[in-house]
Amino acid sequence: MAVDEQPLHPITRRLQEVHDELLDDSGGEIRSSIPALQEADPEQLAVALCTADGHLHGAGDVEARFTIQSIVKPFVYALALADSGHDAVLEAVGVEPTGEAFNALVLEEVTGRPPNPMVNAGAILTGCLVAGDDAEARRARIRDGVSAFAGRRLDDDERVSESEKGAGERNRALAWLMKAEGSLPYDVEEALDVYVFACSLLVDVRDLAVMGATLAAGGLNPLTGEQVVPATVDRTVLSVMATCGMYDGAGRWFTEVGLPAKSGVAGGIVAVQPGQLGIGAFSPRLDEHGNSVRAARACRLLSDRLGMHELRPAGKGLPVVAGHERHEGGRLHVLRLQGPLTLRNADEACSALLAARTQLLADGGGWLVVDLTGVGWLHEPAVDLLEETVRTVEDAGIRVRLVDRDRGNSPDWEGSTPNSTEDSLEAAVGACEEEMART
Amino acid sequence: MAVDEQPLHPITRRLQEVHDELLDDSGGEIRSSIPALQEADPEQLAVALCTADGHLHGAGDVEARFTIQSIVKPFVYALALADSGHDAVLEAVGVEPTGEAFNALVLEEVTGRPPNPMVNAGAILTGCLVAGDDAEARRARIRDGVSAFAGRRLDDDERVSESEKGAGERNRALAWLMKAEGSLPYDVEEALDVYVFACSLLVDVRDLAVMGATLAAGGLNPLTGEQVVPATVDRTVLSVMATCGMYDGAGRWFTEVGLPAKSGVAGGIVAVQPGQLGIGAFSPRLDEHGNSVRAARACRLLSDRLGMHELRPAGKGLPVVAGHERHEGGRLHVLRLQGPLTLRNADEACSALLAARTQLLADGGGWLVVDLTGVGWLHEPAVDLLEETVRTVEDAGIRVRLVDRDRGNSPDWEGSTPNSTEDSLEAAVGACEEEMART
Amino acid sequence: MAVDEQPLHPITRRLQEVHDELLDDSGGEIRSSIPALQEADPEQLAVALCTADGHLHGAGDVEARFTIQSIVKPFVYALALADSGHDAVLEAVGVEPTGEAFNALVLEEVTGRPPNPMVNAGAILTGCLVAGDDAEARRARIRDGVSAFAGRRLDDDERVSESEKGAGERNRALAWLMKAEGSLPYDVEEALDVYVFACSLLVDVRDLAVMGATLAAGGLNPLTGEQVVPATVDRTVLSVMATCGMYDGAGRWFTEVGLPAKSGVAGGIVAVQPGQLGIGAFSPRLDEHGNSVRAARACRLLSDRLGMHELRPAGKGLPVVAGHERHEGGRLHVLRLQGPLTLRNADEACSALLAARTQLLADGGGWLVVDLTGVGWLHEPAVDLLEETVRTVEDAGIRVRLVDRDRGNSPDWEGSTPNSTEDSLEAAVGACEEEMART
Amino acid sequence: MAVDEQPLHPITRRLQEVHDELLDDSGGEIRSSIPALQEADPEQLAVALCTADGHLHGAGDVEARFTIQSIVKPFVYALALADSGHDAVLEAVGVEPTGEAFNALVLEEVTGRPPNPMVNAGAILTGCLVAGDDAEARRARIRDGVSAFAGRRLDDDERVSESEKGAGERNRALAWLMKAEGSLPYDVEEALDVYVFACSLLVDVRDLAVMGATLAAGGLNPLTGEQVVPATVDRTVLSVMATCGMYDGAGRWFTEVGLPAKSGVAGGIVAVQPGQLGIGAFSPRLDEHGNSVRAARACRLLSDRLGMHELRPAGKGLPVVAGHERHEGGRLHVLRLQGPLTLRNADEACSALLAARTQLLADGGGWLVVDLTGVGWLHEPAVDLLEETVRTVEDAGIRVRLVDRDRGNSPDWEGSTPNSTEDSLEAAVGACEEEMART
Repeated sequence: MAVDEQPLHPITRRLQEVHDELLDDSGGEIRSSIPALQEADPEQLAVALCTADGHLHGAGDVEARFTIQSIVKPFVYALALADSGHDAVLEAVGVEPTGEAFNALVLEEVTGRPPNPMVNAGAILTGCLVAGDDAEARRARIRDGVSAFAGRRLDDDERVSESEKGAGERNRALAWLMKAEGSLPYDVEEALDVYVFACSLLVDVRDLAVMGATLAAGGLNPLTGEQVVPATVDRTVLSVMATCGMYDGAGRWFTEVGLPAKSGVAGGIVAVQPGQLGIGAFSPRLDEHGNSVRAARACRLLSDRLGMHELRPAGKGLPVVAGHERHEGGRLHVLRLQGPLTLRNADEACSALLAARTQLLADGGGWLVVDLTGVGWLHEPAVDLLEETVRTVEDAGIRVRLVDRDRGNSPDWEGSTPNSTEDSLEAAVGACEEEMART
Repeated sequence: MAVDEQPLHPITRRLQEVHDELLDDSGGEIRSSIPALQEADPEQLAVALCTADGHLHGAGDVEARFTIQSIVKPFVYALALADSGHDAVLEAVGVEPTGEAFNALVLEEVTGRPPNPMVNAGAILTGCLVAGDDAEARRARIRDGVSAFAGRRLDDDERVSESEKGAGERNRALAWLMKAEGSLPYDVEEALDVYVFACSLLVDVRDLAVMGATLAAGGLNPLTGEQVVPATVDRTVLSVMATCGMYDGAGRWFTEVGLPAKSGVAGGIVAVQPGQLGIGAFSPRLDEHGNSVRAARACRLLSDRLGMHELRPAGKGLPVVAGHERHEGGRLHVLRLQGPLTLRNADEACSALLAARTQLLADGGGWLVVDLTGVGWLHEPAVDLLEETVRTVEDAGIRVRLVDRDRGNSPDWEGSTPNSTEDSLEAAVGACEEEMART
Repeated sequence: MAVDEQPLHPITRRLQEVHDELLDDSGGEIRSSIPALQEADPEQLAVALCTADGHLHGAGDVEARFTIQSIVKPFVYALALADSGHDAVLEAVGVEPTGEAFNALVLEEVTGRPPNPMVNAGAILTGCLVAGDDAEARRARIRDGVSAFAGRRLDDDERVSESEKGAGERNRALAWLMKAEGSLPYDVEEALDVYVFACSLLVDVRDLAVMGATLAAGGLNPLTGEQVVPATVDRTVLSVMATCGMYDGAGRWFTEVGLPAKSGVAGGIVAVQPGQLGIGAFSPRLDEHGNSVRAARACRLLSDRLGMHELRPAGKGLPVVAGHERHEGGRLHVLRLQGPLTLRNADEACSALLAARTQLLADGGGWLVVDLTGVGWLHEPAVDLLEETVRTVEDAGIRVRLVDRDRGNSPDWEGSTPNSTEDSLEAAVGACEEEMART
Repeated sequence: MAVDEQPLHPITRRLQEVHDELLDDSGGEIRSSIPALQEADPEQLAVALCTADGHLHGAGDVEARFTIQSIVKPFVYALALADSGHDAVLEAVGVEPTGEAFNALVLEEVTGRPPNPMVNAGAILTGCLVAGDDAEARRARIRDGVSAFAGRRLDDDERVSESEKGAGERNRALAWLMKAEGSLPYDVEEALDVYVFACSLLVDVRDLAVMGATLAAGGLNPLTGEQVVPATVDRTVLSVMATCGMYDGAGRWFTEVGLPAKSGVAGGIVAVQPGQLGIGAFSPRLDEHGNSVRAARACRLLSDRLGMHELRPAGKGLPVVAGHERHEGGRLHVLRLQGPLTLRNADEACSALLAARTQLLADGGGWLVVDLTGVGWLHEPAVDLLEETVRTVEDAGIRVRLVDRDRGNSPDWEGSTPNSTEDSLEAAVGACEEEMART
């Protein structure tokens, strides 16, 4: 066996398999009045995946570049949320799905606001809410911001933006309608100019996968380490992608694929599994809703095969209480916890701590060692529940020692009970026995 | 200190705090033309939470009973999916949010189908798709099925069903409209009869919490252990609740609260954190959309304080590779993994295995021990990726031994690599060294 | 030349020509889910015209009977207006065109009322507003009333009403929707029963022509002499037919044909030229709006060829002042009027009277004879203007004598100026000269 | 009595009465974002009426000038029909009422056309269909054309057009939407420029009355004698005003007032009684639909009191056959006709001619004199029917002589039966007797 024959990573292989299965799928057609888009090679097909840790995989025409089009919407929305603040942006643009096409002339009845930032009207408006005093500054902010999501400086396709600038009558109508309703307090031409520019940024599927991974990682680009937008922004963006990202088919998409996603008329799709990974897919032929036929199928296949549906109800994992031993005639209890500290697990762990407390009190008090060595994935509110329970136990006069070898990784835990954390179970039990002997 | 003063579980305390904060909130009003609902005590307030492990907490008027009303819709939908199959149900009823009120006369344009099972039209139809040859049988199936979700036999409020039967003109209009469109191929009066009956089932917030927990646990009632509906059904139900559950405010709810949920006109709400828990909340005063003001606020407060938003992008947990040591002059590698085996972690773990393979090959081959003792929460597709990578390493002539103390809990892992799993790291390393000595 | 070869009346000939031209027109198709309608002979074609004087002409299958269907709507509306009064009916049902199909589920937003009585919802409601304590009585009232319009007792087609009673799901939905909105305060089944019965009355084109002529003649059936509904009712019915009678094509119909009209799904159309005549046309094949293709074309051709467009701006007729002579050295003026006494003519006539007054006063006063012998078609408000002006002239001390040979036919004129009307111009002038001689 | 005390014409008095009754009516308010309109004196009230013969009456602030606003729409539509032809204009703009407000963003679904020329979208488009190569030329054409309707050169209010040009965001949205739909194949800014200019023309109520009278008179301005647009154009304009002129209240207006009309946001209304007269009314305070409260009431009162409702079914006039005498032993029949020669009358007259023919034939043939002296208001198709019947009688060998003293006024009659028309009944009878004597 030759050493230089590097085997495929299993995720790369999954992408390759999906790519190969879809290669002969000739469904859909190029749908655009924009000349630059009509010239696309309809046979191109590419898919990429990037984890929230920055592992990037790809298959097919991963270097093929295309204009980002509507896929830019969630990212511009994220920048607007970061620059103008949640309150201002949520006051300006709704977050409700419409059941209408992306370019429908639908504004909210009473407020005149765009229904959500994933339809054109909403995106035109959010483009005005990124930092910048004029159109040029906002264009620069968008290029910089979206590039930060992608982890590399993105070029724009001037031919596309030029041709759209001339042809975008419907967007112009939308902008003037918002102007009339008082919901677009900005210069219409500047707003359109920024919007068209944003849509014309050039990406490949790897860029989309990294951008998705950045959303998956709470706004932190896993390749560059840059915190592009705050994590709170991220949550809102993903929620809106979940309910409004795939236009009039959003419900079906979320039911079947279960991933927040966004498609663009050039044939790209970005999909995100929060906390896990981002997917980029590309193929120019579109279905009647304007979604790329093969890119959408690629997302479906990957979601199915890799179990990505966000609302899959997880099966039962390991019991959070791996062991509960009593030592020293019942005066020393050792609780060993394991698994991710989710709410569900925290609930059970707290119950176990309270049960130990009851038994110890019944036996006249004593020591409790809680071994957290096997616990990972610390969810801050769950940690709070556990800490609170530890204090409840201590308040009953019971001495508690935690064992948490890797706790340095969990910033929120640090310092909460400073005097009682040990590096190993042995050390903790030993310390207890020492104290016990002293009393 | 008195032993009998049992301290509150921290989750119970959270519920109690939320309950107390909302007690004086007098927003909203009782909105119903149904006499039985008008008689409700507007001051009642209750909240309950049940984990997917079956830990049940409550605060306030947890014994107050009320009619389930529209909250029954996702559960009837679940029963219909279980009884008639996904394909038949998805063909009969859409899954798209409408941006309209729950009783809007909106059907899909081409198909004449109800847009989703959370609006009245959809629920009237799904009530026909549960098992049963006639209305009586379907009523019985619904009572039994919803009772199985709740874990106890639910009564119905005959006064409510009687009064609704007389007053439900709008539902009757909807049913006849579907009949006209050909989308309700059932007897109209029977369909309405079943629907009204389903809405009249009597629950308290603990029932709702358990019902939600059953959805959270993949259809398995954590109190009774009964698999009420298959897990695949559950995913679809939760997706539709996420996008369509809170009517015309579904987008805002999902953005802010991030939990699939469903409200009823009697004042109840059920919310689900998939894989984790269910929440039941109740207070009779409603806002203008028909959602209980205080029950909705209770869900928001709990989601905020316990970090339940389904699309929060998780922060970085512990690194999945806890250690990578070389022994025996580089001929024996030991990889220690930790944390939940998600896709993201599996990806990194696979990369580590492949890197070890490369190094071992460069060094002339050898042994690899993979310590899974610290790994929990096994996600089946992630396990598949890991197994595949283990085989890739083995295919290069490298001997692999897994260490998995608790692997008995993970049914999917069992037996995949039968000859190489040990109970402890020491045993695995020892076995390798023995082999090494023999060669 | 044989005496018994009776030549065709020119209007009969026009009908025959139109009939012959359309005979080979095979456009449209029978569109109905009602079995009895599907059995219609698609080749049947008939057209009839009846003047407001009761002259009836016909061509084609004038004896072919068909169910009146929606054509009954304006007549039921007329009966409702007559029985319940304008205010009650206009409060219950709107008069606005909708731009929607006849069976659209559209009610007025704030009121929940049907938009107009020509759509199904409106007709179901107006059927409740005719006299009668129960469905049977209202059915009897409708049969009697519509028969009075037609001038003969109409039978109903039980097969059609039976089959519609079973199949009318959409109407049932409409009725329940109105019930839900509170705009149909009647028993739904009774309302539908009456509506279906009304639609099932059997007519031929001569019936339709006479019914139209009755509307044209202010509610007076020109064949029977019966005042079926008051003239004020008639005006409202014709207005609503003009704006709402031809469904979503009402604007085009009124622009091109210019006649209030109503079509039915069995292939009939009634059209009215107010004050002049009614047209009945019939052919079973329908266009996509549900209007009979050949019956509609027949109406168009007749309107074009006979100049029936209601809003044709009339050309200039004879000058109303046929002559103005001075006698007796200017002390006696004779004004001869001619033509119909419309507002326009009355205005000019009044001006002429006032001018004569001025001249007479300038000449020291005198006599004025106004010859109305050539004036017909007396419009009451125009007569009022003329009378008022006569009094103005008299108030200036001028003696006025009217000449009105046939004034007995004009009931409103009678008695207004009792002492100054003569039968002939000669008599009037003679009387003046006599008086003049006496002074 | 003083000669110089000129009494009021009765129509002037009617206007004055209506004016006085409405003087204290303070309903409505000035509704406009246009500064120039906000400055209007809300107390102003004026009403004018002009007959199709050019008699002009007025009451109140008849010299108050205001911008014509939407009232210009039917006149621009008329000019477009005249300049571009019926087919082109009807293909570009629909004629259907919408049930929506004047500025609704509603286009026809399949075609993308404006629904009718009375809503802003339609008017923007018809402004492009008047003659002129560029915006300036079309502005000039509109000023000239509308001035021709008014009978004097109209100025425009530059302040209004300037302020609207800036503020008309909604119209800009409409224009771009039409552009996007392909239904506005013109430069958007030019189209808006022309539209805004047209709306800014300055008129008073007398202008509106004359403009209405010109429409009433088939496009012939009764003051100037200019044929402004062809009569066929006029009919279409009046039809569209009837069904679409008063926006979302068009049905109620036509039912109650019965006059084609158009209102403007500055407070003006024009109403037309076809063939008879035009009304102009003005008062700045508007109701919630944008119609002037007092101007609309003025039209209602005038229509009621002067019986102008277009669809009032006319009562019975004089019998068209004033006499039928036989002379010369039945060999000479004399038929004396009277009244307007409408279809209804022509039908009866033809019947009388045919009956005379039958009798004469039974008696062996003879002479027929038809005395038309008392017939006015000749309707061309009715004349055709009569002529045709005369020929039928002549074809049976009967000699027919017409008596028509004033027939020179009826151009279509002239020459049809050249050798048999006499100036007086005596002459005709004499001629017959002469012939009779000769045979």
